[in-house]
Formats: sequence, structure tokens, C-alpha cells
Amino acid sequence: MPSVLVIHGPNMNLLGTREPEIYGSVTLDQLNEQLRGLADELQLSVDIIQTNSEAEIVSAIQNAMGSYAVIILNPAGLTHTSVSIRDAIAACGVPTIECHVSNPYRRALTEPFRATSMTAPACAGVIAGFGTASYLIALHAARMLAEEV
Amino acid sequence: MPSVLVIHGPNMNLLGTREPEIYGSVTLDQLNEQLRGLADELQLSVDIIQTNSEAEIVSAIQNAMGSYAVIILNPAGLTHTSVSIRDAIAACGVPTIECHVSNPYRRALTEPFRATSMTAPACAGVIAGFGTASYLIALHAARMLAEEV
Amino acid sequence: MPSVLVIHGPNMNLLGTREPEIYGSVTLDQLNEQLRGLADELQLSVDIIQTNSEAEIVSAIQNAMGSYAVIILNPAGLTHTSVSIRDAIAACGVPTIECHVSNPYRRALTEPFRATSMTAPACAGVIAGFGTASYLIALHAARMLAEEV
Amino acid sequence: MPSVLVIHGPNMNLLGTREPEIYGSVTLDQLNEQLRGLADELQLSVDIIQTNSEAEIVSAIQNAMGSYAVIILNPAGLTHTSVSIRDAIAACGVPTIECHVSNPYRRALTEPFRATSMTAPACAGVIAGFGTASYLIALHAARMLAEEV
Amino acid sequence: MPSVLVIHGPNMNLLGTREPEIYGSVTLDQLNEQLRGLADELQLSVDIIQTNSEAEIVSAIQNAMGSYAVIILNPAGLTHTSVSIRDAIAACGVPTIECHVSNPYRRALTEPFRATSMTAPACAGVIAGFGTASYLIALHAARMLAEEV
Amino acid sequence: MPSVLVIHGPNMNLLGTREPEIYGSVTLDQLNEQLRGLADELQLSVDIIQTNSEAEIVSAIQNAMGSYAVIILNPAGLTHTSVSIRDAIAACGVPTIECHVSNPYRRALTEPFRATSMTAPACAGVIAGFGTASYLIALHAARMLAEEV
Amino acid sequence: MPSVLVIHGPNMNLLGTREPEIYGSVTLDQLNEQLRGLADELQLSVDIIQTNSEAEIVSAIQNAMGSYAVIILNPAGLTHTSVSIRDAIAACGVPTIECHVSNPYRRALTEPFRATSMTAPACAGVIAGFGTASYLIALHAARMLAEEV
Amino acid sequence: MPSVLVIHGPNMNLLGTREPEIYGSVTLDQLNEQLRGLADELQLSVDIIQTNSEAEIVSAIQNAMGSYAVIILNPAGLTHTSVSIRDAIAACGVPTIECHVSNPYRRALTEPFRATSMTAPACAGVIAGFGTASYLIALHAARMLAEEV
Amino acid sequence: MPSVLVIHGPNMNLLGTREPEIYGSVTLDQLNEQLRGLADELQLSVDIIQTNSEAEIVSAIQNAMGSYAVIILNPAGLTHTSVSIRDAIAACGVPTIECHVSNPYRRALTEPFRATSMTAPACAGVIAGFGTASYLIALHAARMLAEEV
Amino acid sequence: MPSVLVIHGPNMNLLGTREPEIYGSVTLDQLNEQLRGLADELQLSVDIIQTNSEAEIVSAIQNAMGSYAVIILNPAGLTHTSVSIRDAIAACGVPTIECHVSNPYRRALTEPFRATSMTAPACAGVIAGFGTASYLIALHAARMLAEEV
Amino acid sequence: MPSVLVIHGPNMNLLGTREPEIYGSVTLDQLNEQLRGLADELQLSVDIIQTNSEAEIVSAIQNAMGSYAVIILNPAGLTHTSVSIRDAIAACGVPTIECHVSNPYRRALTEPFRATSMTAPACAGVIAGFGTASYLIALHAARMLAEEV
Amino acid sequence: MPSVLVIHGPNMNLLGTREPEIYGSVTLDQLNEQLRGLADELQLSVDIIQTNSEAEIVSAIQNAMGSYAVIILNPAGLTHTSVSIRDAIAACGVPTIECHVSNPYRRALTEPFRATSMTAPACAGVIAGFGTASYLIALHAARMLAEEV
Repeated sequence: MPSVLVIHGPNMNLLGTREPEIYGSVTLDQLNEQLRGLADELQLSVDIIQTNSEAEIVSAIQNAMGSYAVIILNPAGLTHTSVSIRDAIAACGVPTIECHVSNPYRRALTEPFRATSMTAPACAGVIAGFGTASYLIALHAARMLAEEV
Repeated sequence: MPSVLVIHGPNMNLLGTREPEIYGSVTLDQLNEQLRGLADELQLSVDIIQTNSEAEIVSAIQNAMGSYAVIILNPAGLTHTSVSIRDAIAACGVPTIECHVSNPYRRALTEPFRATSMTAPACAGVIAGFGTASYLIALHAARMLAEEV
Repeated sequence: MPSVLVIHGPNMNLLGTREPEIYGSVTLDQLNEQLRGLADELQLSVDIIQTNSEAEIVSAIQNAMGSYAVIILNPAGLTHTSVSIRDAIAACGVPTIECHVSNPYRRALTEPFRATSMTAPACAGVIAGFGTASYLIALHAARMLAEEV
Repeated sequence: MPSVLVIHGPNMNLLGTREPEIYGSVTLDQLNEQLRGLADELQLSVDIIQTNSEAEIVSAIQNAMGSYAVIILNPAGLTHTSVSIRDAIAACGVPTIECHVSNPYRRALTEPFRATSMTAPACAGVIAGFGTASYLIALHAARMLAEEV
Repeated sequence: MPSVLVIHGPNMNLLGTREPEIYGSVTLDQLNEQLRGLADELQLSVDIIQTNSEAEIVSAIQNAMGSYAVIILNPAGLTHTSVSIRDAIAACGVPTIECHVSNPYRRALTEPFRATSMTAPACAGVIAGFGTASYLIALHAARMLAEEV
Repeated sequence: MPSVLVIHGPNMNLLGTREPEIYGSVTLDQLNEQLRGLADELQLSVDIIQTNSEAEIVSAIQNAMGSYAVIILNPAGLTHTSVSIRDAIAACGVPTIECHVSNPYRRALTEPFRATSMTAPACAGVIAGFGTASYLIALHAARMLAEEV
Repeated sequence: MPSVLVIHGPNMNLLGTREPEIYGSVTLDQLNEQLRGLADELQLSVDIIQTNSEAEIVSAIQNAMGSYAVIILNPAGLTHTSVSIRDAIAACGVPTIECHVSNPYRRALTEPFRATSMTAPACAGVIAGFGTASYLIALHAARMLAEEV
Repeated sequence: MPSVLVIHGPNMNLLGTREPEIYGSVTLDQLNEQLRGLADELQLSVDIIQTNSEAEIVSAIQNAMGSYAVIILNPAGLTHTSVSIRDAIAACGVPTIECHVSNPYRRALTEPFRATSMTAPACAGVIAGFGTASYLIALHAARMLAEEV
Repeated sequence: MPSVLVIHGPNMNLLGTREPEIYGSVTLDQLNEQLRGLADELQLSVDIIQTNSEAEIVSAIQNAMGSYAVIILNPAGLTHTSVSIRDAIAACGVPTIECHVSNPYRRALTEPFRATSMTAPACAGVIAGFGTASYLIALHAARMLAEEV
Repeated sequence: MPSVLVIHGPNMNLLGTREPEIYGSVTLDQLNEQLRGLADELQLSVDIIQTNSEAEIVSAIQNAMGSYAVIILNPAGLTHTSVSIRDAIAACGVPTIECHVSNPYRRALTEPFRATSMTAPACAGVIAGFGTASYLIALHAARMLAEEV
Repeated sequence: MPSVLVIHGPNMNLLGTREPEIYGSVTLDQLNEQLRGLADELQLSVDIIQTNSEAEIVSAIQNAMGSYAVIILNPAGLTHTSVSIRDAIAACGVPTIECHVSNPYRRALTEPFRATSMTAPACAGVIAGFGTASYLIALHAARMLAEEV
Repeated sequence: MPSVLVIHGPNMNLLGTREPEIYGSVTLDQLNEQLRGLADELQLSVDIIQTNSEAEIVSAIQNAMGSYAVIILNPAGLTHTSVSIRDAIAACGVPTIECHVSNPYRRALTEPFRATSMTAPACAGVIAGFGTASYLIALHAARMLAEEV
């Protein structure tokens, strides 16, 4: 059974409790529950971590080599600046799906920096804008990527 | 049964026959077959059109109002410049999923204009980079969007 | 009696039915009725077309040579990118009034591309921001331009 | 009878006497006469001032509150830089029409700064490029705005 | 007792009467009253002027040499463009505190020019975003600057 | 005998009738006659189309695969923005010569956008600035390209 | 008694020991002593932390919810790039005062990146340039913000 | 005897008393004395004004028409932004020499805005960087321009 | 018989010996032979020089006045920066054809500076991308230009 | 014997195991062995750390004060964004050599951000592009810097 | 008697013979004669060189050390790009006057690169726009600079 | 014994005699002596040239093919603009080390153009900032590159 590593970046621990007009009202625990349920359905094993630290994300990606078939990564606020995460994805070689709860292109209307992603060029693909459902859609994508390998 | 409109933009009729290193080897007919199969599975009805014309895409989006629950749109080369399509999506109000076969962020390494999307801010979400599977993943996303409505 | 050609660009057929906070609640048919009424009053004949196609706008402008004294043109979403329309206006020589329902400078606060007009440098003048009344004001302007010729 | 305040900005006192290829040959006095004549016809009262001073324009706009239904403002050379005038228009609340004799988009071909307007986002609408007739067209627009209020 | 000169720039005379969602509901007179009260408490003498004129601000700063220990300056709309005020502050040598009612960085989300200050590099420090309380906080800062001299 | 497809873009149907200081006084019919004459001389067959529509240019390029040895393309106003034409040239694989009547670098002195070509990176080569003779020179170039294949 | 959290960012532990021409000669311990003394005077309780880690600043801000009335934050070198801290401030909802020892606008004369703040748009206000006194002034500001709540 | 108008812009009244490392130690009165002496020698009459007000500079330039053969203008801080002064020079038609005490290109090393001049394109020529001697050199230039007319 | 001057710029002496994937395998001697052969055929006389020196190119262009009907110039690496060559072409008045072996627009995908030409605005036309055949095509163009004169 | 601190930044622990076309095939352990061997030869003592954390690099630099004569630092992905590391180097005062395995200028052909270094302005010098030998060359440079002190 | 070195840059040998609308009709020989005459009058000795070579200008400036009191330099087309000339002026220490026949700010209306000078920051001052009289004015300036030394 | 070519660019002949705060006090002759001494020690033969001419540098690089194992090149002022030198390095194929006496990143604080290198992408590596010792370090690097070949 292919295994998937889900990495929630900075501030994702607050999911569902603050700014619901941007991030919705599903909490991180509820989302993780949904992810585990869908993983079962899709015959994937799934491990999930959340961290506010760039260094821990880099290390998690490095350690995924050999252990995971696919990474689902929401770099959150680090999306726009982190060369280290980009380099880690490129070096690690595990197909990685960049995933965002909100639509960065729309948010960029008032915050232009949100339209650029430092990490996406190193990723296999990007899924963004579907609320917490972005993660579930990403799990469907992970299922397809796992088959290709 | 919620219905989905799939719009393939300019040059997508060549899918699978040229530049397979970018677009893969699945032809448009094969992809459409896969889409119809998965739609059945997901209990969605699906209509599919391909056109090289911006005006026809604008009209198709306008006409989708009241007839479709979700639009899956690959604006292809028009992604980066078409204000008319952006305005049509905003006016039409049908939740629209922007979908790309290749990863525009990666292609932007040598073609910087590919990193910007004029149409994405008006869309519900974006799915890009998974080859022709991007469309299948988008159909899963459409399934979820249809439930929300 | 001098004749005026009014060209409504992409998505203007939706006028009055969608996004009334931007475009108001007057429909295109109602607006055209108002235009015909005011034209009578100002002793102008008026022809009106609407199209979503850049190519059809280009051709309409080309064909206006010799037939119309003034063109009133709302290029809508094509305003910001269409060199072909700009070139057609310059080649055609019929004095052209660029006309917008909303104020593009204000909309540019969140959509910066709306502040630039590719077509305006080729036009005689610009009228923008008065809602559908922009067209009526443009007809007054056309009246004056027609006198100059 | 609704009243309109017309503000001519810096160097407009030279109208008709210098650079006629840009500004035409109608003098400011002649233009003001035309404005008064048309105002009578449109059943508007009109007051007219000219000043080279940004501070006096700011004060005139502030003082228009409660006294005028519409302002017609040609900020001239201050168009491109004056945040103070922009802020005064926004604070004052009287619908303001930005008005230019020449077409700033066309002049921007060799003077790019003329394509940007610091004041226009705060205005109701913009009328530009019709020579001194821009003011007369603006008076028609003022008539319509006065009706709306 | 060290004396402080407070300069309110363009449109600050409208404080409290317009756009309270940006500037609050305290009027300029009430604010000046608060400033005089706090100055007493802090054992500072205070003089206050308001003007819409860049030239008058420049002259006021020039004249402050030798008469005031600290200047509190809200250049308002002139913040973003006035080299003359910047040069006057640098030439005058009196420590100057730039003070803004609203947070220019936040307003810059839709008005990017508000993020730059032409005058701040010549100032001792900047206080912004606390509503009219920014001035009171600036008076505390002036107290400390006066002690340093 | 190798065959060549000549595509004249938007507004080229006006050639020779308008703005002769930019485009010269040879009409499109005269130019096509010259092209057919020179093609005979160079032992090339030639087909010629003119259209104002981006979509028709895209389709013409797609259909050239297998039928033509070389395409001579003047994208005219679409040169600067059309990703769809660029993508069609890249996908089609027929060596394409971009051809302009005027010198875009010189016109860019007052219209900076004319210095960039969205389509040229996908073309074999570029010939520009020789008036309508640019097309005749391009036919010589086509002759050489046809020999290489 | 309202409580205030003071967060000193990267390198602030070196305060007073290095580059006194930029940061002055007061050490961090001395500054913290001054802050505690003034807090007593203003009837505020105060907690103070220093860290070189972006992740720890993010977590500290998250944990401040419900425990502190105001945050005084000097993001130091993270000011210019940290989207994660910006997002944490926006999510946390505790009014935050951005505080800098030196004047970033002045330092931007030779280091232009210092003029931009990624974190300030999410803050209530900004105080900068008064040396270590910036923190004391910020405490006065915190006193006023605490009253408003 | 041809007459020359010398206009000293904002803050030039402080010449010689502040920031001598930039502006030297000659006072404005001393400089004006030198200018009058050299004018005598060169058989020119000279009038001199100093003002901090953009509007007064605009009016002075307007009024110079018919009265002066040459204007020597130091727009000081207004150099970089004043479209009104630029327009006044262009409208007035009197040959104008832009004159600066310091070298704006060198100052632009830390203040980049000083490298641009909004007013210079309308001037006959520019003389900058020779300290207060720039004015004396400009008087020599005025002598030559007066001969040409 | 009209005479043509061909100027090969810096590094063109290495043609055919290095980086054949960019410049092809024809050596400069072979190319010059081909040029002389085709010139005979076209009844043109031809002189050819190669130099790595900008100053020598400038002088060669200056000296071409009166001696040559057309210049074919490959400025090579000097294309992107040499104002002196641009000025020499403009001053010299001999119609000049800018000629490049490779397609600068395509090379600009990874070296953006290659998309700009400092020299092209002063040239009659540009021919680029046909390998060493660009020179032969340019000779055809020279033949046509020589006829026009 | 002068001591040198070598700091390997994020992802350098993967050296030699991934992307050998960029980073070569020497592992970090092998490189460290080479560094220790050369240090002996050059009569330097050497300490070596690797971390993925910006905060740990900042702290390591701070702690180097008084203990090390020279720092050799490869900030890796943090090179392009970390103001905190730049500030730490400036504050710490220990001469620091920025060192890169690959040539950032060459990689910038497709990843433009790699051409800028936020940290280099605070460093004594930079050595880049020699593969893992960059570190050995840096040790020679450290030897020379240590002699200077 | 102080000596002055006049350096005419690329293409200045064509002065008076080409493009008189930009450069006037005085030839270089006539100008040099005027310079020698005025030098006598001002009691200056003068040496004059003209070259199209950047390297020769650099060497001439280097050799001026110890021999000349002032350099008058027209870098012509090299003004906008030559760091070598800038460095030579800074190293040489002889006060240098940058001198241009035409007004670069005005020419920049259609050729924006002409507004920047790479060499001016290293010069004492700049004189531009007075036609060939710029050189005579520069000689007056040299007279004043020579007195200062 | 591998041979190394050292090329000193424009103005390097002044080394040690001018601006010692930037370039140090070692003269070019002394530096060359040090280079020859170290070359002996490292068993390298070394040839050294200095020139102010871009063309001579291009030719020297071209001629190095087949004669030298490594080039050490300080392009000095030509670093930032010379495409010809870049192309020569790429064509020549001899591994080239770009070498700078000062740290260009630090000098870029006030001269931003110094942060870009046109030549570095074609070089094997870069060594900068160690004063004249940069050359000695480069010789160590050359020793290592010579071994690799």
C-alpha cells in the first residue's frame, strides 16, 4: 500500500478557528480525520505532520526519500520565499503536490506576493483554492501519481 | 445528476500527437473517453468542447449559466492574457476549475509569462501539472464542488 | 444626418443581469433603446453591434471607413491587450471614442492591469466611469466630433 | 437648479495662447463663456475658478461640500502626482469628473508619466481628449450625475 | 520647558468629519485639545498649525530652527512625493517625528504608493497606525527626544 | 516543388491603402502577385491567406503540418501577445519565418510593446523592416530552409 | 492589569554590544529593565522573550491569543520577508505594534530592502527610529490600545 | 540689454547656512551679489526671486513671457516631480536653463530619485554640480542663448 | 554595380569552429566565399571585414558614407549595448541590415538580454535566425535596398 | 593556531548523494575529511557544523565572536533571503567567506533569484562555482585572512 | 597657466556634417577653433583629442593625472554604459566636466536610455543641451574649477 | 607544467596608486611578482597581461585556446556589460576564473550595477573581495582546475 506524507506548514494548526472567511471552519483535526478516511478508501497509508519551522519541513522532506511514494505539502507562508524547501524537494525526488486551502491568485489581488511560489517549480503539480477539500483532491492526485511510479 | 462542462482551449486538439515531453502521449479523444468514464463513476454528467477561439470560450462560459454545476477550463495559451475569459467567469457565476496539463511554474523557468494567470483569480481553484490526469483530478474536485452548492 | 457606430465588446451582452455593483442594472437592450432615443434627439443615426470576438471588432472598425462619422467603442476585456484593435482604429481614420461603464482607474486598485489601455492612444478621446450613462455622454461627444469634421 | 463647480488647474490660464497643436485655440475666457451658455441650456448653475496652486485646489474641493452637486476638475500637471487632491475628493464626497483637454494616453507615447492618474481613482468618471469640448461633454455628464443624486 | 511644533498637513482639517472608518471620529479641534492637555502633563509647550500648502509646511519647518526642540509632522498626502519637505527637515536640523493616523502599510494593499515615504528618511522616527492617538504617542516620543538633546 | 504557406495577420488587408508612411503603398493584392511571381522563379508553390482572427491563424498553422515545407507568418498586432500562435508554431513543427513590413525596434521608440515578440522564439527566424519587400526576402529564406529539410 | 508580550527578534540579544552607531549602547538586559519599570508605572504587566527563530516567533504570537492584550514585536531581520509572522499576527487577533530601534526608511538609502515590511500590514501600528526608546514609546502606545479594547 | 530671470526654488533661502558639505558656504545673498556683478560684466540685466511655492514658480515662468530673454531655474526639490513647472516652461517659450548646486547624479548614489528630472526635458539645457558657481556658469550660458535669439 | 560592406563583429572569427549547436559548422572563410559567390550572381560588389573592436566598427560605418550602397552588420555581442554603433549608423545614413546567425528571441529564453537590440532601431531592417544563411538572405535584401535608392 | 568555523547550510547534508550534475559526487563526510586534511597542512584548526535552520546559523555566527578567526559559510538556499544571517555577520565582526559549490550566476540563467545574495554584502569575500573544491579554496583564503588580522 | 584636456568621444568627428537638427552645423574643427580662442581669452591652455575608442578615452584620462587641471569630456555614446570611463575618472582625480551637445533628458523622450549617465556620478559637474556652445560654457566652468584647486 | 593566463582589465594598471580604501596599496607590479612567486610554488607557469581594451581581452581569450589550462580574468569595469567577453569565454572553452579585488556585492550598496556580472555565467567560478589576495586565491583555484582537466 503506497504511503503518503502530508506536511501542514506554519499557522495551519489554527485551521478552522480563525479567519474562516479565508480558510473555512473545518479544524486541522477534522481535516486530518477526513484525510485518513479517504486514504483508507483509496488504499493509501498516510502520515501527517504540522510545523511552523522551515527547517523541520526541509528535514521531513529529506527523510521522506525511500519511505513515501508521494508528499502532499502546504508550505503556507513559506511558499513565497523558501529556497531551502524548493531545494529539498528537488533533491529528495519524491513526487510532491503543492496544496493550498485558499486561491493564491485571488488573494494576490490585494497581496501581490501571494501570486508567486518559490516551491511550485520543484513540485509535480499544484492544487489550490478548494478550501480544505484541496487536501482531499490532492489525495486523489497522490493515488494517481503512486500508480505511475 | 450534476452536469460538468469541460472546455479545452487552443491547441489542445493536438494533445498526444506533438511535444509529448511536455503534454504526454494521451490523445484528446482518449482523454475525453477517460473523462466520460470517470464522470459515470462519480455520477456526474459531462459535456466536452474544444476550440481555438477566445470568443467561443467566452460564449460557452456565458451559456453555462443555469445549465452546468461546474466548469473545468483549460484556457491554454489564453491563460496569460485573456481578460474577456476572466470577466466571463466572474459574470457567469458557475464555479470554475482552471486546469493545466503541465506545471506552469516549472515552464516559467524559461518562459516567465507562464507563471501568471489572468483567469485564475476568477476561478474557484486551480489544478496543474499532473499531465492529462489533471483533468481527472479536476473531475474529483468538480464532484466536491457540486456537493457544496 | 451623421451616423455613429456603437460597438459593445465581450460580455457586454450580460449587462444588467450580473455584477450590478460594477455594471449597474440597465440591460443591454434598455441601454440600446436609450441610445437610439438620444440619437434621435441629437439628430444622429446610430447602428449598434455586440460581439465577443476581437476579429469581428477589427472587421467592424475597418468597415466603418466611409460609412460612419464616429465610432463609440467599448473594447471591454480587450481594452488592455488588443494591438489589433488599436491598429484598426489608427488605420481606419474614423474618430473613435473609447467608452467604459466602470471607472478603470478605480478598479485598478485591486486589478492593476485595468489602468492600462492598449486601444486609447489610437482613439480621439475616452469617457469612463458613469455607468451605462457613459454611452449617452459619448453620444453627446460624438455629436460634437461630427460637427468638427 | 443644481450647481456645478469647475476647477481649472495649473497653466490652464494659458489655454488658447500657447501650444495650440496640443490644447487648441479656444482661450480660457471663451471656454468659460461656452460653459456658462451650456449650463443655462442644461439648467445648471456654474462657478468657475482657475489656480496654479495645489493647496487652493484642495481647499476649493473641501469647500464644495454642501454647496455643489458636481465638481468638474482638470488637475492638469497635478493629475499625475497629487495625493492631496485625491484625498480631498475622497473626503469631500461630491461626485467629481476628471476632465482633460488632450488625450493623456496618446501623450504618454513620449511622456509615459501622463498615462497614470493619481486623482482619477477618487473620481466618479473621466472625460479626456476632446479638446476644450471635453469640458462641455463633462457638463452633460454633470447634468446626468446631478439627476442621480 | 521644551517646545514642540505640531504640523497637520493637507486635509487634516477634515479629521473626524469624513471617512471615519479610516481616520476615526475625533475632530481636529478635539485632537488639538488632547495634545495640549498631554503636553501640560509632560511639561512641554506645544504650538499647532494646519495647512494644505507644501510651501507653508516647508517654511514652518525652516522657521522652527532655534525655536522648537522637536517637530511632530503629519505630511498627509505630501508624504509620498515631497522632496522639498524632506530637504527642509534635513536642512533645519530639528528632530522631526513623522506621524500618521492610519497604517500606511495596510492602506498600501490597495494603494501601493502609500507604502513609500519621501519624508521619513530625513526624520528621527516614525509613528503610524494608532488613529489620532498616534499624535499623543508622538508627544511621548517628543518628550524623550527633548531629553536627549 | 516545396510549398509555402503565407499567412497575413490582422489589418494586413488594408495594406497600401492607409498609413503609407509606415506600411508603404503596395496593396495586399499587388504584394500577393509579387509573391506568386517570385515563387515561380524560385520553384516554390505558394498559398496565401489573410485573416483578422487569432483562432484562424492557429488553425491554419495546425493544418500546415504535412502539407507545407515552410510557413511565412506576419502575426501583425497579435505578435506581441499571442501565446496560442506561439504554441501552435511549436507544436506544428513546420519551420516558420516571422515577417514584418515595418521595423518593430524603430516603432518601439514611441510604442515600447512593439519591441517584444511572443511568437518569435518559436520561429526559425525573423525578417523585419524592409517594407513589403520583407515578404519577398522571406521567400528567398523559405527557399533556403526548404533545401535544408 | 492588562498584560503585554514583548518579542525581540533575531540578533536583538546583541543589542548594545555591537554596531552602536546603528543600535545605540543600551544592552538588551538594560532595555528590558527599563520596559519593566515603565510597565509598572503604566500599570501594565509585561512578559519578554528573545529568539532568533521565525518558528518560535510564530508560535509565541499564536499562544498570545487569550493571554495578552497587546503584542510589541520587533521582527528584526524577519521584517522584510516573513509571511508566516504576518499570517500569525492576522490569525491571532491580538493588536500588535511593530517596533524598530533604527529608522528603516533611512537605512534603506543604502539597503533598499529595509524600506519594505512584510509584517506591518497585519499590525495595528508601527513605531520606528527612536533607538531603544522605540520600545518605551511602544509601551505608551500599548497602554492606549489596551484601553480601547 | 537682454534681461535674465533667476528663480531659486524651495529651501534655497537656507543656502550657505546648513549642510555646507552639500551646498557650500556661500549664502544666497552673497550668491545673488555675485550674479549681479557678473551680469553687469556680461551686459545682462538680472532679476532674482526665491520661493518655496510651486505655484509661484509656475506663475513667475508664465509672467516671464515677453519680459525676459532667458530664465535660470533651480527647481530644487520640485525638480523630480513637478509636471506643472515642466508644462509652464514648455508653454512659456522662454529658453530656460536648469541649474543645480550639487551633482544630482552623484547624490543619486544613495537617493535614486535625484537622478530623474521632470523639468529638464522642457529646458534648453542643464548645468549641475559646480556648487554655487553653477549659477555663474549658467549666466555665461544665458549670455550665449541671448545672442542666439 | 552597387557595393555592399559586410561587417562581422566580435568572435565571428571563431565561426564554425566552436559551439556549432548555436552557430553551425560553416567557417567564416567558407561563409565569406558563399557571400562573394552570391554577390556575383546578384551583381553586387562586396567588401568584408571582421573585428572584435567597437571603435573599428564605428569607424568602418563612418567611412562607408559615399562608398557603399548598403551595410550588412552583425554587431554580435555589441548588439545589446553599443550606443556608439547605433549613433554611427544613424549619422552615416547608409541603409544598414542587422544580421544574426542565431535567433536572439529564442536565445533570450535563458539569456534575457539577447532580446534587446540597441542597434536595430537605427537599421533599415533585421534578419536573424537562419544560421549563416542569414547573411545570404541579407544579401538578397541588400539587392532590393540598392534598387530603391 | 588560528581556528576556522565552517557552516554548511540547508540541504548540504545531501551532498554527493543527489543531483550530482549540480553538486558533484563528493559526500559531505568526504568533503569534511578533505577540509580537515587541508586545515592541518595550512596550520589551521577547523570546526564544522551543518544545519537546515536559519536560527541555528544565526546563533553559530553570534557565538563565533572571540572564538574563531574566520568563518566559511555556505548559506545555501538561505543566501537569497536571509536578512537575519546578514545582520549576524555584520554584528559578529568575524571575517566571513561566502562559499558556494555551484556557480550562482550560471544557475540564474533559469532561476533568476540565484543571482542575488542577501548575505554577501556583509561578507569579506565570495568564492563560488568550483564544486566542493570551493571549500578548499576558501580555506586557502581563510589562511590569508587570518594572517591579516 | 592651467591646462585643460578636451576629449571628444565616438562619432564627434562627424559634428556639423550629419543630423544638424540634433547636433547643429558647427564642425568639429570649427568648434576646436572656438575652444582655442576662448581658452586664450580665459588664460587657459587647452589640448583636444577625438577618439571612437573607449580604451583610448580611459588611457587619456589616466594620463591626465599631473598634467591637466581640468578635463572636459563628452563620452557621447559611451555615456550610458562605460563603467571603465567612470572608474578612470574616479581614479584619476582630475576634476572632470561631462559635456553634451544635445539635451539628453529631451532625447530620452523617445530613447529612454539617454536619461542615464554611467559616467556623471564620477564627474565634478555636467553641462548639456546648449549645442556646441556646451563646450564653451564648459570652458568657463573649467576656469572656475581651476581657480578652486 | 600547466600554464595560466592572467588578464587584468581596465584601470588595473593604477592598482595601489589610487583609491587604496577600495583597492589596497599593493601595486600591479608587486601583485604580478607575488603571482609569479606563488605560481612557482604551485608548479604552474603564468603569463600576465593588462589592457584597457575590450577587444584585446576578447582576442587574448580567443588565443588562449590550446595554450593555457586556465584563465584568471578580472574584467574590471567591463564585468557588468561585456557580452563580447562572455561570448569569447564560452567559445574558447578554457576554464576561466572571474576575479575581483573588491567585493562587488558590497559596492553595490551605493552602485547597484556592480551586483550584476555579464561575464560570470560563462566562467567556471568566481573569487571576489579579498583585495589583491583574490588573485593569489584564484591561483590556488587554478591549480585545482588544472588537475581536474
